[in-house]
Amino acid sequence: MEGDFVIDGAILIGAETRQASDRFTAIDPATGQVLAPSFSSARGDAVDAAAAAAAAAFPVYAATDLETRAALLEAIADAIMAVGDDLIVRAMAESGLPRARLGGERGRTTGQLRLFAQFVRQGDWLDATIDPALPDRAPLPRPDLRRINMAIGPVAVFGASNFPLAFSVAGGDTASALAAGCPVVVKGHPSHPGTGELVARAIAGAIAASGLPAGIFSYLPGETNELGGALVAHPAIKAVGFTGSRGGGLALVRIAAARPEPIPVYAEMSSINPVILFPAALAARGPALATAFVQSLTMGSGQFCTNPGLVLALDTPALDGFIAAAAATMGTSAATTMLSPAIHAHYEKGVDALAGHRAVRTVARGCPDTGPNQAVAALFETDAASFLADRALGDEVFGSSAVIVRCRDLGEVSHVIAGLEGQLTATLHVDPADEAEAATLVPAIADRVGRILANGWPTGVEVCHAMVHGGPFPATSDNRTTSVGTLAMLRFLRPVCFQNLPQALLPAALHDANPWRVARRIDGVREASKPSS
Amino acid sequence: MEGDFVIDGAILIGAETRQASDRFTAIDPATGQVLAPSFSSARGDAVDAAAAAAAAAFPVYAATDLETRAALLEAIADAIMAVGDDLIVRAMAESGLPRARLGGERGRTTGQLRLFAQFVRQGDWLDATIDPALPDRAPLPRPDLRRINMAIGPVAVFGASNFPLAFSVAGGDTASALAAGCPVVVKGHPSHPGTGELVARAIAGAIAASGLPAGIFSYLPGETNELGGALVAHPAIKAVGFTGSRGGGLALVRIAAARPEPIPVYAEMSSINPVILFPAALAARGPALATAFVQSLTMGSGQFCTNPGLVLALDTPALDGFIAAAAATMGTSAATTMLSPAIHAHYEKGVDALAGHRAVRTVARGCPDTGPNQAVAALFETDAASFLADRALGDEVFGSSAVIVRCRDLGEVSHVIAGLEGQLTATLHVDPADEAEAATLVPAIADRVGRILANGWPTGVEVCHAMVHGGPFPATSDNRTTSVGTLAMLRFLRPVCFQNLPQALLPAALHDANPWRVARRIDGVREASKPSS
Repeated sequence: MEGDFVIDGAILIGAETRQASDRFTAIDPATGQVLAPSFSSARGDAVDAAAAAAAAAFPVYAATDLETRAALLEAIADAIMAVGDDLIVRAMAESGLPRARLGGERGRTTGQLRLFAQFVRQGDWLDATIDPALPDRAPLPRPDLRRINMAIGPVAVFGASNFPLAFSVAGGDTASALAAGCPVVVKGHPSHPGTGELVARAIAGAIAASGLPAGIFSYLPGETNELGGALVAHPAIKAVGFTGSRGGGLALVRIAAARPEPIPVYAEMSSINPVILFPAALAARGPALATAFVQSLTMGSGQFCTNPGLVLALDTPALDGFIAAAAATMGTSAATTMLSPAIHAHYEKGVDALAGHRAVRTVARGCPDTGPNQAVAALFETDAASFLADRALGDEVFGSSAVIVRCRDLGEVSHVIAGLEGQLTATLHVDPADEAEAATLVPAIADRVGRILANGWPTGVEVCHAMVHGGPFPATSDNRTTSVGTLAMLRFLRPVCFQNLPQALLPAALHDANPWRVARRIDGVREASKPSS
Repeated sequence: MEGDFVIDGAILIGAETRQASDRFTAIDPATGQVLAPSFSSARGDAVDAAAAAAAAAFPVYAATDLETRAALLEAIADAIMAVGDDLIVRAMAESGLPRARLGGERGRTTGQLRLFAQFVRQGDWLDATIDPALPDRAPLPRPDLRRINMAIGPVAVFGASNFPLAFSVAGGDTASALAAGCPVVVKGHPSHPGTGELVARAIAGAIAASGLPAGIFSYLPGETNELGGALVAHPAIKAVGFTGSRGGGLALVRIAAARPEPIPVYAEMSSINPVILFPAALAARGPALATAFVQSLTMGSGQFCTNPGLVLALDTPALDGFIAAAAATMGTSAATTMLSPAIHAHYEKGVDALAGHRAVRTVARGCPDTGPNQAVAALFETDAASFLADRALGDEVFGSSAVIVRCRDLGEVSHVIAGLEGQLTATLHVDPADEAEAATLVPAIADRVGRILANGWPTGVEVCHAMVHGGPFPATSDNRTTSVGTLAMLRFLRPVCFQNLPQALLPAALHDANPWRVARRIDGVREASKPSS
């Protein structure tokens, strides 16, 4: 099969491939060596071509019926699997992530494509709503009014470094945009361009086999900020999905806001994911919590948006025991390769700043590194007054670094939470005896996060209907949304109302006969979902 | 009853009233005379106090049950009615609008409060979603995940000039924010401060009687841009509702984006609401369409966001007949008082610019004015090539002014539509013989608007479930939303996920026992709405 899955550094504009003379290469972070081949560094001409192809494909793709669109998502999942082990091997080389993790991530990537397919078929996302005419209403008759969610237009997707499959070329942003009826132009992440190209070719192949317009998908490899900026600024692009750094996300937000027609940017950026250890839970199972905490912190070199970077607890002997157990576990924790030299350098800088902070004590470090770009885990502690006095102690250190904050009482825990920026998650460790106190804090915590969880760890984001992978700024740039789970589709939809339109001019889901058999809200009363097929 | 409904120019901070030494006055646009009394011009100290009161009230109000919140909305509606005729008389004096219109607008205002109350009780807006735990799933168990929509936080609402009741202090933005569980701080529109104060006192009275925290609502009269800017910049404010000019809306968008924590601004700004006369409809009923068009254009001095300011049709003898009939009707159309001297001056400037444009012919004017600040209706025509050549011909002229564009063929109609900025509405006049041609244009039209309607007129926005009063920029600053209808609540909600939380820590709507008896989505299958009570 190898020959079927070329990596030649191409730009994909719909069905067309082209090469650029500007080139860049990927690095194997485990060795520091350059990986062959070189890749095209796409520029403005490729952006224009991809955006034009997306705009031309948009009306056709947005008008597809539920089954056509669902089948395309499933075909893309199949095509990704068909790349076979080449995909895993290339992703391992480009990311330093182990085989088991990437195999699981591939399963998650295809699983979310299939979940969106199922959700598209069901049709609830259309929010089809009909307020029938009331011709005899006084003083004025009511016209016939019908509403449906429609695709927003071509979407720019930025691949993330830390999930080369699940948050990259065919990741959650692409899947949800395609599910919504939006063509996608992906700006590939430059640290895994070979992985990106393999996936991009799989998507393009699935689209070609479907008979749908090739312009539904284009792929722009590149390493310049100018490429991303040009894509977001292009008038044909109507929304942006991004997962990455705060600086990168905010740059895209600014570009989008400065357009003649501003567009929404869904940037998932920065979070330290506070964990609160309530007294009874800490007293009952401190050492076990410590071990599990260090496992969550160091998994994947801590390179997760939901990595637990902040622990809040009362300053008690039980906390001393937790810290000692965490230190012991971390002391045996092997150094692991990070995603890229840049991420590793950034991690080291963040850890050094904490280690050198006068109000911070270094509790433990992981085992020394044995190769380039390896993360040595780091655990620090401080007290609440110091934490509150210096906002820099709450900055994200991307990687396996966490700060434990000793608090005098729950009031101080509450102060620390109130002072935090918006977060993706907050975690509570509670025993039944803690619940009354925890209940007083939950509303304020919920107000700062997208997800609140109990007696678990924030890493491991389930792809389902109830998930929210979002949260107040700067966790994301838009806290009304999620980038994981079926609700993510809503980012790329807008409601449109049809008043007194003849049947022939209405979208199918609003026809009297309901040919798509979707659940509808009639005069304010919504029907139950149709069963999944 | 008169004594109960004071107008003394106060600022309302929750239950407290205060006066500022800086004062401003309203003008009766029908006479140009100053109206007593003078009003406080609120400044930063009042913004701080109102925002702090809102922030303090937020957790209590956001936690209210469905019935408490619905009852408050109904009590506000009752309180507005209890002001009695004083409200109508004052609004007539401050707006120049006739009694019948303001009586109808009051009914709409209280009607939408009652509709939101009903919608709150039903609970579908919570989008309660449960993905039950799958402890035996391989390779990893699924935790219990539950999601619900929660209030976003205190909301700043800017009253609009053109609906002193329905889009002002207790208008759609306030009603939908209160329905969502968000405290509201209103910045009153300076052209109807007495009307605003009467309504504000009615709201405050209803809140006082409810026993809920007074900080749920504050009212800041004022005439400075600094007041609005300080309100949007305040860290306690989490979203903004605005209806008004493009310049004003964009200024608020910029302020909100520049905050340390950016917040969403829902600004409804600018639209010329194209009307397309298809050939068969035009041939069959041109003169009747012309009369109805001029009625829609001149109603309320044309001071509607949905006023039909652009007519597209093929350059045929039937169009000549339409234009002649429209000119005849407009020639008998009386001049009517506009909302304020500033709006009148702006209207005159816009009409003068069109009348003096070399590519534009003045088709008709209304009857001459007989008093200050009266709009003399204006109808112009041009051809598609000229319209396409000068974007200024597509600028909104707020008032009873419209431009008819003669098109060579439907391709040219299509070009004009493609070149338009985003619009609140588009209107099609179609006979059955037109439907095949219209069908080819509908997708592109729907892509540029929030509402598309047939064989009617865009003025008259129904408050219901299916309504979308929104649209792509610059019709609004956020085309995923509406400012009219029950969907408007979603602007002030954000999803929050709860993972493995003990029952005692969950919001009521997510308890296993479903004590609020709301429709929920379980494992992807949504229950039917509970019947309205």
